[in-house]
Amino acid sequence: MQRPEPQEFARVLSSMCTEPHPAARAAAERFLATNPGDPGTYEAVADLEREAVALLGEITRLSDPAGYVTSGGTEANVQAVRIARNRRRDDVDRPNVVVPDHAHFSFTKAADLLSVDLRRAPLDDDYRADTDAMAALVDEDTVGVVGVAGSTEYGRVDPIPALADLAADADALFHVDAAWGGFALPFTDHEWDFADAAVDTMTVDPHKLGQAVVPAGGLLARSPDLLDTLAVDTPYLESTGQVTLTGTRSGAGVASAVAAMEELWPDGYRSEYDRAQSLADWFTAELRERGYDVVDPHLPLVAVDLSPSTIDALREAGWRLSKTGSGEARVVVMPHVTRDALSSVLSDLDRLG
Amino acid sequence: MQRPEPQEFARVLSSMCTEPHPAARAAAERFLATNPGDPGTYEAVADLEREAVALLGEITRLSDPAGYVTSGGTEANVQAVRIARNRRRDDVDRPNVVVPDHAHFSFTKAADLLSVDLRRAPLDDDYRADTDAMAALVDEDTVGVVGVAGSTEYGRVDPIPALADLAADADALFHVDAAWGGFALPFTDHEWDFADAAVDTMTVDPHKLGQAVVPAGGLLARSPDLLDTLAVDTPYLESTGQVTLTGTRSGAGVASAVAAMEELWPDGYRSEYDRAQSLADWFTAELRERGYDVVDPHLPLVAVDLSPSTIDALREAGWRLSKTGSGEARVVVMPHVTRDALSSVLSDLDRLG
Repeated sequence: MQRPEPQEFARVLSSMCTEPHPAARAAAERFLATNPGDPGTYEAVADLEREAVALLGEITRLSDPAGYVTSGGTEANVQAVRIARNRRRDDVDRPNVVVPDHAHFSFTKAADLLSVDLRRAPLDDDYRADTDAMAALVDEDTVGVVGVAGSTEYGRVDPIPALADLAADADALFHVDAAWGGFALPFTDHEWDFADAAVDTMTVDPHKLGQAVVPAGGLLARSPDLLDTLAVDTPYLESTGQVTLTGTRSGAGVASAVAAMEELWPDGYRSEYDRAQSLADWFTAELRERGYDVVDPHLPLVAVDLSPSTIDALREAGWRLSKTGSGEARVVVMPHVTRDALSSVLSDLDRLG
Repeated sequence: MQRPEPQEFARVLSSMCTEPHPAARAAAERFLATNPGDPGTYEAVADLEREAVALLGEITRLSDPAGYVTSGGTEANVQAVRIARNRRRDDVDRPNVVVPDHAHFSFTKAADLLSVDLRRAPLDDDYRADTDAMAALVDEDTVGVVGVAGSTEYGRVDPIPALADLAADADALFHVDAAWGGFALPFTDHEWDFADAAVDTMTVDPHKLGQAVVPAGGLLARSPDLLDTLAVDTPYLESTGQVTLTGTRSGAGVASAVAAMEELWPDGYRSEYDRAQSLADWFTAELRERGYDVVDPHLPLVAVDLSPSTIDALREAGWRLSKTGSGEARVVVMPHVTRDALSSVLSDLDRLG
């Protein structure tokens, strides 16, 4: 049969994944047939995974980090909620986790999986977590508090230090979801990382802005004790315990994450952030000049108020575009998104009138 | 820095993964930068995933199968337990799942994640599930019953039709874990698949005997309703709901699964099964001639009673070898395991005396 072609990235504006860096792709191809889920058998990739975690620690300013390379942000977020629940298992019967309303839908998944109540607090007027609204939902059964550093819909960074204090007061785990933002935020003035606040665990995904291949997410923990709450015995493996959500895992993802970070941290990521942020700012200005409402892009993600029929017309013109919950079109300025592409979007908008 | 080399497979006797088929590798490399977790954006790989599920349905004799390509057997097993729990959520408060004692440790993970009690029934004298022992553990809170078709330690196939009846009588979901065995069992006389018994869900992994790249596991369900119990809303994706455990997923795994199955089903898998089973039988005979106790290999997996010091000496000689819970050495005759390799193992054993 005719083989379908993989997606061309040129017109993908909706994805938080991107064309992997050539070094990441080459490393992935070399390690396609390895399994970091069985480190006793596959030692080389197990060494690489330790290196990946160390590099993620540099990026998020955590010395001596615990963690592992996950299948993606969802696994990392699920595991963080699982740590939160398990560490309070003996003293909380009906655990809840308090999240800002823009928390990713993986937290909904986590809540279903883990039988944890998810309490969603309304955002402030600038689409950020409202610490008072979060505090109002915290009670003695709160085992976790979540902050988002680079929200999926508007690229917003929550008040991480204030949320960390809130979590500490409740003896709740404080988790930061920087799945997408983590490779841009080191070059901004935002407070978001392990050195800025008492963050316990963090999601930060090499396969998004880190330019690794899928699957390469990241879960970091300030202390290995936190991961130990996840361990199950592995009777027949050469190693003796496993904290990951999945079993067999992708060595390609791990190897590519290391290759990308070695190649790009910090200078490559900085210049990509600078390029993408300028492009987002320029695109915002161009859209506003044309009279469109645009949510101010704190990170390289532009949400613009277009009519449903305009969004449909752009999709028919081949643009891959998704919508926020409120209906704005979302343009994620990933490494594959060029000025030429965004100029074409503007031309198409002008043509559509 | 010096880049570590990926694992050479020549001396890996412990893994249920293998060198991917060249067609699978090529497909994986083409689809490294796609995400079936976002099918609205990445349409080509979403089409491939439907094809993968259809092919898995042929192999397991289920027409019109529901399912998806998971990150591996663990995700598929966790999701099956989650379906079992969720479909009885309204009438069972403290759900339990009854498994034979040789059930993979992913069921332990599932139990922790999902707050489900795991009840392990002792095996019969031939390392298979004992239906009476399983029945004794079933009660009104039993939401799931699990059978294993190709156990991790001894390659055993449980009495699937009898376990299916047991599950049906209890209104429990019946799940078969054929993660490893699924690509060998179609060429045996075992009763294990959707046509042999009232199986509701099944784990069957292309990235094990299917010769796809990691990550490519498989979850199949007799009816799409079962998967619907897993759905969460996905506000910002172009598609509108998600039943998978992970979010972003590997297009490489999906594409390679299709490529491997198109290349190898059925003739290629049959000839590999014939080769591996003969080799396992030959190796068993050679070991027995030397006076070693060997568990009769029902599938291409040999468990041999070696002393701990002999196992250590073989490991020092470079063999990747793991142990069963009872301490036997486990040799999984995967496609990369050759007669030459097993002859060398025998020579090393002879040399060690």
